[in-house]
Amino acid sequence: MPVRNAQAVWNGTLREGSGAMKYGAYEGKYTFASRFENGEGTNPEELVGAANAGCFSMFLSAMLTKEGFKPIKIATTAKVHIEDGPTITTIELDSTADVPDLTDAKLQEIAAVAKANCPVSKALASVNIKLNIKLV
Amino acid sequence: MPVRNAQAVWNGTLREGSGAMKYGAYEGKYTFASRFENGEGTNPEELVGAANAGCFSMFLSAMLTKEGFKPIKIATTAKVHIEDGPTITTIELDSTADVPDLTDAKLQEIAAVAKANCPVSKALASVNIKLNIKLV
Repeated sequence: MPVRNAQAVWNGTLREGSGAMKYGAYEGKYTFASRFENGEGTNPEELVGAANAGCFSMFLSAMLTKEGFKPIKIATTAKVHIEDGPTITTIELDSTADVPDLTDAKLQEIAAVAKANCPVSKALASVNIKLNIKLV
Repeated sequence: MPVRNAQAVWNGTLREGSGAMKYGAYEGKYTFASRFENGEGTNPEELVGAANAGCFSMFLSAMLTKEGFKPIKIATTAKVHIEDGPTITTIELDSTADVPDLTDAKLQEIAAVAKANCPVSKALASVNIKLNIKLV
């Protein structure tokens, strides 16, 4: 199985400094303001949210495929809550599933397992991950 | 404290499908091959690695600033290991610190606390995070 590489650099002190997070061809700048206020740039929490949404969507498709369904589209939004600590307390996954011949009851059953077992959800063991999913 | 948003979509089945992870202005495509083989594109593990490296570098700078040091640069590489399961088992953080007047002993002491307490490390509670850091 693969090993994935990423990098980050932080230049300077906490409030006056700035940094960048990198992987593949991507480089995203971040600052104190982009992390804890409303400044321009990204922050680690956005990356965690995208990773969890991406992992869940792919894992749910995999599980549905195994059960004999042919998923057309799984679309997921992640809201990552960072609170005093600072601590990432909660991630809200809001998802829609376009899957022919699937009932809502079966979707809820499979999606709950996908939410718990996708690799990024398992890694984020101290975070309360909430899922809201519906058929479209 | 802010709530951060990100999105992902997966179109189709596991092996034939493809998806994209999005946050801010970024959109990164991913496939089965880019996740578990060597195909072009990104994967959730790269985002998790960048988030952990970014969080640690910024948190270490914050802790050093609090202790009265003036950090110039913290540079960190993350290697994210995904193994059978699939499970994210280990993240190796390899870091260098350019900080005037700091001894190696003090760096090791503060960096160990930063590794354990940065929000992304705390969130990744089931992952074995290893740190190797030196002064430059």
